[in-house]
Amino acid sequence: MAATVAAAEATAAAAAEAKGRQHTGKAVGLAAHDASGHLAPLTITRRSTGDDDVAIKILYCGMCHSDLHSIMNEWNNAMYPMVPGHEIAGVVTELGKNVTRFKPGDRVGVGCMVISCQSCDSCDEGFENTCRGGIIFTYNSVDRDGTVTYGGYSTAVTVHERFVVRFPDAMPLDRGAPLLCAGVTVYSPMKYHGLLDANADAPAGRKKQKHVGVLGLGGLGHVAVKFAKAFGMKVTVISTSPAKKQEALDRLGADGFVVSKDAEEMKAAASSMDAIINTVSANVPLAPFMGLLKPNGKMIMVGLPTKALEIPPFDLIMGNKTLTGSCIGGMRDTQEMLDVAARHGVMADIELVAADYVNTAMERLAKADVRYRFVIDIGNTLKNSE
Amino acid sequence: MAATVAAAEATAAAAAEAKGRQHTGKAVGLAAHDASGHLAPLTITRRSTGDDDVAIKILYCGMCHSDLHSIMNEWNNAMYPMVPGHEIAGVVTELGKNVTRFKPGDRVGVGCMVISCQSCDSCDEGFENTCRGGIIFTYNSVDRDGTVTYGGYSTAVTVHERFVVRFPDAMPLDRGAPLLCAGVTVYSPMKYHGLLDANADAPAGRKKQKHVGVLGLGGLGHVAVKFAKAFGMKVTVISTSPAKKQEALDRLGADGFVVSKDAEEMKAAASSMDAIINTVSANVPLAPFMGLLKPNGKMIMVGLPTKALEIPPFDLIMGNKTLTGSCIGGMRDTQEMLDVAARHGVMADIELVAADYVNTAMERLAKADVRYRFVIDIGNTLKNSE
Repeated sequence: MAATVAAAEATAAAAAEAKGRQHTGKAVGLAAHDASGHLAPLTITRRSTGDDDVAIKILYCGMCHSDLHSIMNEWNNAMYPMVPGHEIAGVVTELGKNVTRFKPGDRVGVGCMVISCQSCDSCDEGFENTCRGGIIFTYNSVDRDGTVTYGGYSTAVTVHERFVVRFPDAMPLDRGAPLLCAGVTVYSPMKYHGLLDANADAPAGRKKQKHVGVLGLGGLGHVAVKFAKAFGMKVTVISTSPAKKQEALDRLGADGFVVSKDAEEMKAAASSMDAIINTVSANVPLAPFMGLLKPNGKMIMVGLPTKALEIPPFDLIMGNKTLTGSCIGGMRDTQEMLDVAARHGVMADIELVAADYVNTAMERLAKADVRYRFVIDIGNTLKNSE
Repeated sequence: MAATVAAAEATAAAAAEAKGRQHTGKAVGLAAHDASGHLAPLTITRRSTGDDDVAIKILYCGMCHSDLHSIMNEWNNAMYPMVPGHEIAGVVTELGKNVTRFKPGDRVGVGCMVISCQSCDSCDEGFENTCRGGIIFTYNSVDRDGTVTYGGYSTAVTVHERFVVRFPDAMPLDRGAPLLCAGVTVYSPMKYHGLLDANADAPAGRKKQKHVGVLGLGGLGHVAVKFAKAFGMKVTVISTSPAKKQEALDRLGADGFVVSKDAEEMKAAASSMDAIINTVSANVPLAPFMGLLKPNGKMIMVGLPTKALEIPPFDLIMGNKTLTGSCIGGMRDTQEMLDVAARHGVMADIELVAADYVNTAMERLAKADVRYRFVIDIGNTLKNSE
């Protein structure tokens, strides 16, 4: 309780400070105005650069499936006009006087969060993603000053330095942008559920090699395969779509592929996996996939279905299995993920699109017709005037 | 897959060996003959003592809630006649020639399992409870020789030495018997989810002290409170029954008590617990209890409800929470649990009953009218002839 109280006090103090903010900066965002989800340019304001802020000229923004859910109000929490986007890459244009980590021109990124209470035990330990005070998301959140946050489908953004990460030299802005959400979302649970550690220390071929399943081969899934391979895991992609097999094996380097609708293939893979990274946000029964786990195996939910998960108690208790959720990652882990990705050459496979293609891209995204992430070329195609 | 194949081969070999068994021993068990669950004495056979076997004269047997589920065929897997009981305490009467760990007269116990494949990776690591070859339970399981196992509501049993544990001197047989199921069922997940370790090393009052909720104060729950207190945790009992508050605090030493139907109390306890040991086998919604967990908190299922668990994805993913199952424990951990319990004075609170009281005890068990475990005084009240 103490942590919660402290967080509440800190939040109140931050809110009081934030009230004095001026929103004098102009930018252009791609905004949805209702649950049709249609996006059109809109002039928006950005706050002036506060003492701890980093002002960023946005060059690229990834299109996450969450953006689609959000603009169509599928989570029933939309506030319009909504400017989506939380896979932001750009360059620093201005710095607050307290900011020493960055300089103008630095290549930087912003992910799913733009502020947290910074005083609870979660924040203290670097897990702003589970802040007790409640995190403010990059878009469609009410910020401390009462304004609604606008995301990265826009020409500029101003963010507290704690929530800004540095792009390593080897990481291109366009292919790296999706890692700010999709990357850390799969990297963080791999780290905290011991999937990375065991492999980093273990020589190839050792018994300790982990076998991880990646359920769903989309934006998150394809990055999960890349990280898992980079860390020496055995990776099996589990998908409804046999058409993805060749690509999963040949291009992404997966070791196996299981068509989830094929009872024989599912049976052959039974009880073989240490963990499954479940990236599926559709409402799919979990029980058949729990059967793919070894004893003590973990089903790690990173997709966010709309309906309640159902799981027969026997499937969990017999074999000491675990169903766990993981929500993005803390800022320290986000920077670490980006550094690790650069070192291992892990990048998103993207289709770079112009700003005026965004509605078509959303339609294609709804049909999973993208390999594997649309990234909007903000810098070249969205102008800072309507 | 290799582990599964090896386990299957080992199982086949063991089955072939087991076929030669003679079932020449006579014993008397309390048997149910149909789903009425009524128990009556029945003469049964026990196998002669094999090379690796320990023959045991049973003195006490705890009455687990599973026994009630089983005799009434609530899990739809009953094989009648059924002699229940998997919290067995007694003395060694005869040993196979390969057995060196015990001698006649030793005080010993048998829990939920009587054999496993002994060759899979789980067994190799001491986790017979998650054996890939499938474990043979102490009752209502088809044994390797084709006979159906009979449990501890009986005068004698013959068990492979691997599945026999030694009672420490300081542990009485009657109050220790329930630990063979209830004890290890709560101790094992505390161990593997880091609840014991953090406290063993941390001085009292340290930030690292874990706060554990115990959901349901019955046979498992009351032992969970005792183990948690023994290891220096902060313990809050969560129960539907305000009548148990005084006892939980005063007699069992819990630090807090939350009435789960009281919205104010639930709100006050929100987001405060590192883990909840969920001992409830009734079909109760999980979501309200997930709210009691801190970020990264774990809901550990040790009760076995009949219906699917339902959990909203947000409740799991926001806060990186975990729902996990735990099924008894391995034999090494069972021995360790009993040793640790003796050292800390952890014993079950029991009501010792005569064999001819067993049906009344079952009726009371169905109404949760016991604090907290019935133990049958087999040695004094069940004779070795009908």
